[in-house]
Amino acid sequence: KTQGPEIERLIQLLARLPGLGPRSARKAALALLKRRTDLLEPLADAMSEAARRLHTCPECGSLDTVQPCTICRDQGRDRTLIVVVEDIGDLWALERAGVVNGVYHVLGGHLSPLDGIGPEQLAIPRLIERAQPPVKEVLLALNATVEGQSTAHYLREQLALSGVAVSALQQGVPVGGELDYLDEGTLAAAIRARRPL
Amino acid sequence: KTQGPEIERLIQLLARLPGLGPRSARKAALALLKRRTDLLEPLADAMSEAARRLHTCPECGSLDTVQPCTICRDQGRDRTLIVVVEDIGDLWALERAGVVNGVYHVLGGHLSPLDGIGPEQLAIPRLIERAQPPVKEVLLALNATVEGQSTAHYLREQLALSGVAVSALQQGVPVGGELDYLDEGTLAAAIRARRPL
Repeated sequence: KTQGPEIERLIQLLARLPGLGPRSARKAALALLKRRTDLLEPLADAMSEAARRLHTCPECGSLDTVQPCTICRDQGRDRTLIVVVEDIGDLWALERAGVVNGVYHVLGGHLSPLDGIGPEQLAIPRLIERAQPPVKEVLLALNATVEGQSTAHYLREQLALSGVAVSALQQGVPVGGELDYLDEGTLAAAIRARRPL
Repeated sequence: KTQGPEIERLIQLLARLPGLGPRSARKAALALLKRRTDLLEPLADAMSEAARRLHTCPECGSLDTVQPCTICRDQGRDRTLIVVVEDIGDLWALERAGVVNGVYHVLGGHLSPLDGIGPEQLAIPRLIERAQPPVKEVLLALNATVEGQSTAHYLREQLALSGVAVSALQQGVPVGGELDYLDEGTLAAAIRARRPL
């Protein structure tokens, strides 16, 4: 052994973070040890505090340190628009873009019958419950993958009789995208959904 | 605001780790929040524990959770050989390679007069104190950079009258290195230090 077990354990746990392999976990651990008071201790405290206060929002299914979550308790949000996402990471991405003034619904994944993931394994029953007047629109902001789109298809059918409009993100050329580098599926979708100028 | 301040703070602190930018810090934070019991809480505990037990080794200057450090208290180590490194990361790298059976001395950097880093700002006085019989050899395992090598040059002079042999890492072609991709300096060093076969 060349160091105390606490340091080994720290490196092993850091290596389980996405984006950190064994090598970068060691670098991160060393940076933490060298910066005990201005990084290691504050980060340990921030983690303990986040863990202690963490809740799954009973409204939307997101994670936050307040309950209901910061977004669901925001009185400035339009509660007639529910934006459905697969994952909390998608919710974070939309919030960073600052383009949603509605509230969210986190499914917790996509339908995947082969993996045993049906509607009951996702927050789909709860969505169907929420999707009724005064809610006016359910926007399906699911991934543009086969799984995301087949989940969207299922939800559209389930919500058909709800009396609530169902919409989805448009597909097309990403902003700044160069046609030469785009796949055929994206180009086909952009042509199909072409807009009059 | 779209989330509690504890989560913002967690993301900001994670972004200060080497290898994690703002984007990967968010990914890491989300992974931690989703895995509260099997990752967030254990990592918070490991960090608190490491911070609580962390000591600078009074012998070698390394950081460890025991004092003196695990290496300095290892009775199987050859105390007549002191391996001098710039940084604790270098010590860790040598230990991973498993090629040192001596003890270490961590300088804490290299000489850099323009930045006001002289011998007193590094652990050089303490090295000179340690480098006397029964110590037989001081191996300078410093970076093969201009700064590392000029620090080695200074140390060799300071230790000249110590009665202790001073050695340095050999320079040459890295194992697995292709000549075509090596810089001229490395090739010149490998030629100068050529070995009889």
